[in-house]
Amino acid sequence: MGGIRLSNESNKTIAALGEFGLINTLFAPLQGSGDDNLKVGQGDDAAVLQIPRTQQLTVTTDMLMEGVHFSSDADPFLLGQKTVRVNLSDMAAMGANPHWCLLSLALPASTKLSWAEEFARGVKEALALYDVSLIGGDTTASKGCIAINMQMMGLLGQDRAQLRSAAQPGDRVFVSGTIGDSALGLAQRLGQLKIASADDRAYLMRRHQLPEPRVPLGLALQDSAVINACIDVSDGLAADLKHICQASGVSARIDLERVPLSEAARNAVNASADLESLLITGGEDYELLFTVATGAVELLARITADLDISITEIGEILPQGEESRVEVVKHGEPFTLGKSGWTHF
Amino acid sequence: MGGIRLSNESNKTIAALGEFGLINTLFAPLQGSGDDNLKVGQGDDAAVLQIPRTQQLTVTTDMLMEGVHFSSDADPFLLGQKTVRVNLSDMAAMGANPHWCLLSLALPASTKLSWAEEFARGVKEALALYDVSLIGGDTTASKGCIAINMQMMGLLGQDRAQLRSAAQPGDRVFVSGTIGDSALGLAQRLGQLKIASADDRAYLMRRHQLPEPRVPLGLALQDSAVINACIDVSDGLAADLKHICQASGVSARIDLERVPLSEAARNAVNASADLESLLITGGEDYELLFTVATGAVELLARITADLDISITEIGEILPQGEESRVEVVKHGEPFTLGKSGWTHF
Repeated sequence: MGGIRLSNESNKTIAALGEFGLINTLFAPLQGSGDDNLKVGQGDDAAVLQIPRTQQLTVTTDMLMEGVHFSSDADPFLLGQKTVRVNLSDMAAMGANPHWCLLSLALPASTKLSWAEEFARGVKEALALYDVSLIGGDTTASKGCIAINMQMMGLLGQDRAQLRSAAQPGDRVFVSGTIGDSALGLAQRLGQLKIASADDRAYLMRRHQLPEPRVPLGLALQDSAVINACIDVSDGLAADLKHICQASGVSARIDLERVPLSEAARNAVNASADLESLLITGGEDYELLFTVATGAVELLARITADLDISITEIGEILPQGEESRVEVVKHGEPFTLGKSGWTHF
Repeated sequence: MGGIRLSNESNKTIAALGEFGLINTLFAPLQGSGDDNLKVGQGDDAAVLQIPRTQQLTVTTDMLMEGVHFSSDADPFLLGQKTVRVNLSDMAAMGANPHWCLLSLALPASTKLSWAEEFARGVKEALALYDVSLIGGDTTASKGCIAINMQMMGLLGQDRAQLRSAAQPGDRVFVSGTIGDSALGLAQRLGQLKIASADDRAYLMRRHQLPEPRVPLGLALQDSAVINACIDVSDGLAADLKHICQASGVSARIDLERVPLSEAARNAVNASADLESLLITGGEDYELLFTVATGAVELLARITADLDISITEIGEILPQGEESRVEVVKHGEPFTLGKSGWTHF
């Protein structure tokens, strides 16, 4: 079943294959082999899994709509990758080990077969990163836009979920990697921003199109039980910290100048200071944002020292006060955000 | 949280509530309470489930697209119901007990709030039928059509799945309920068919809009381990029997005059004999189609006698021959179908 490239006839549409042809040729090969826990896979009315008795099941879902989450001319290979990676990021936030997924895909009949092939190739590459198996789904026609939905399932030890609701006043706030790259990549793509350096442009676009789910970090944090609350940054650093605050009944303060930036993002802010708000409101960073009791910070440093990802302390958790809020401070002075998080409607 | 009706302001759109408002007011209440197996529910990056150690997990997904699976003016209450019921039907086919679901919903910002309220009310009513809990999902904007995806999970004893692949030559072929009502209801809705009787019109429309998932039958069959192969009829009786044949490496013959029809469908066929093909190719019946060894037919009759659903023997499983095929016979003569199954592209 090795390759999934079917055709060099670039004008052929998916209608030539039909639903079952698409599934059999493009998606059946994405079900891995040798999984003793998979009792029934693709091709029946439902998949059947045996969950190991020491483990809990984690399950998440993400929908990606053409014109909202991606443009009509988006690279289907990268889109396939991103579909998987945003779900992997949710698994990382819970500290779970991803294993299985289902994919629903609605495509106009006029969709080029080459588009579907490239999309499936992107899904395949991203699934291979973390040995995740596609065990079912639904492929159907669309009379309008392309709609993609993926559900992902993973395993987690008993009582080991890293929740949004576990932040405590006094906790230190940490974030992985760098923040704002994806927002800058998107702004550039939409023509709202000109980045002078070609290297910086390429770096920011890659961060937008190909987010790196922090699965190894999530597993290491969960394994050591060193942190309190955790979330992945999808709506924007400020908005997602607010989600932690609301779920935990606390507030938070972050220092803008401590928010870790890539060299490319630093260059962009140096060229145009009014981008600072965008960095922490733009979203789609897919980094982990988490809180740690002060006494555990040293242990955290030891645990994460060997991982291939930096973590940075950016603020602290405060008592809730009248309502949960996130205070952003720059050099000790209150900083007003341009907009607050990704708005879906 | 009892009611989920928010507003009589029928012109208000969902944009007034926003994503989190929609989730909190419409969908959060659909997570049941008192479920000891649900460790983390809605509101975190992923849900967490404890699967009982004697049970396996079954998981399925279905996507419904505006313009393909439902029309723009479809009743949102019935659409919410159907979204749940088609997934319940997959659980029934596996013999699984449905427990949890996730819902992804992409809506244009101009969608009326009353539409979303009615849709959520329909989902709620159908979930309540089988005590299924909504434990997560994704709500997002759409720039085009409405897209709906539901993933459902259930529990099943070890080695108890009712597979498509277990049919044996000599098996008798059975189907539950009546066949073709949904196809006639749809044809009437699309103006392709005029049904004289108002009662018949209403009955057929209801069968199309509000399919009855055969969960109790599926559980009874699984519990007694009396059947071989099983599938739910979504693509059409002939097409789904062919799915069984292909998965099992067999062929089949059915007698058209034995296919169980409702009084309304019988009246329609009596008025227009050329509808006969449509009955077994139209799809969306959501009845169970299953095969039983000859020696087990008597036991089957005893097991199903107390259920509130009829089952009818319509044919038999044959050796495969050169390739898997479904032969349709009417009064002993070969019958040629008008079209074969629901085509998605």
